[in-house]
Amino acid sequence: MTRNPGEHATVIDSEQAAKDPETAETVAKIKALRQSIDNVDTAIVSLLAERFKYTSQVGVLKARAGFAPADYKREDYQIERLHRIAVAAGLDPDIAEMYREFVVTEAKKRHQRIAEAGGDPGVLDVFA
Amino acid sequence: MTRNPGEHATVIDSEQAAKDPETAETVAKIKALRQSIDNVDTAIVSLLAERFKYTSQVGVLKARAGFAPADYKREDYQIERLHRIAVAAGLDPDIAEMYREFVVTEAKKRHQRIAEAGGDPGVLDVFA
Repeated sequence: MTRNPGEHATVIDSEQAAKDPETAETVAKIKALRQSIDNVDTAIVSLLAERFKYTSQVGVLKARAGFAPADYKREDYQIERLHRIAVAAGLDPDIAEMYREFVVTEAKKRHQRIAEAGGDPGVLDVFA
Repeated sequence: MTRNPGEHATVIDSEQAAKDPETAETVAKIKALRQSIDNVDTAIVSLLAERFKYTSQVGVLKARAGFAPADYKREDYQIERLHRIAVAAGLDPDIAEMYREFVVTEAKKRHQRIAEAGGDPGVLDVFA
């Protein structure tokens, strides 16, 4: 992780919360929101696991057929599609595009490794 | 998006598939997998929208209480937690950590903007 030593930080804990009732109320609200954020992260990480299992299968099919890891037409389709879904969901479309670039870049790296291993998904071991 | 002009690419389309039956079968399999990938992306982008709505609320609470955007204890907890969830789900934990860095970095940027606006979430307009 990137941790800037000069960055101002506040650790939210019960010691701080005990100082006064108003702070205690804010800390309780933040803790409740953090539980929801953790639940969302559990769901997203589980979905990312499924996504990489699917893209690993695509990587094997592409390698065996001699297709390259990159497919620009597919990427253009994904960019437009995720932009639209983000706006409808109330998410900054820049975030959706950063997400797309992240997963597509990582999937292509893995496709390249599968291609170099002659279509053997075993190169990715348990992590597709 | 990052598009390397020298990068080898293969556009999967029906014209290419029509060439021979084996290629057609591979293309059909890839298309089916891509539909599943698109479904996963729809779910993830929708969850990211919810995540940023929650972190925007955290940002407002932190700004009003004078807390800094960063909280290292919370980040250490998230790193360990997401690593564990990733391994259990069969996802490369490096991918989970890249996801965490991406969302936490973006959330902190937004917290900073809320703090600079004196706790007004309006600075983020419709995109929390």
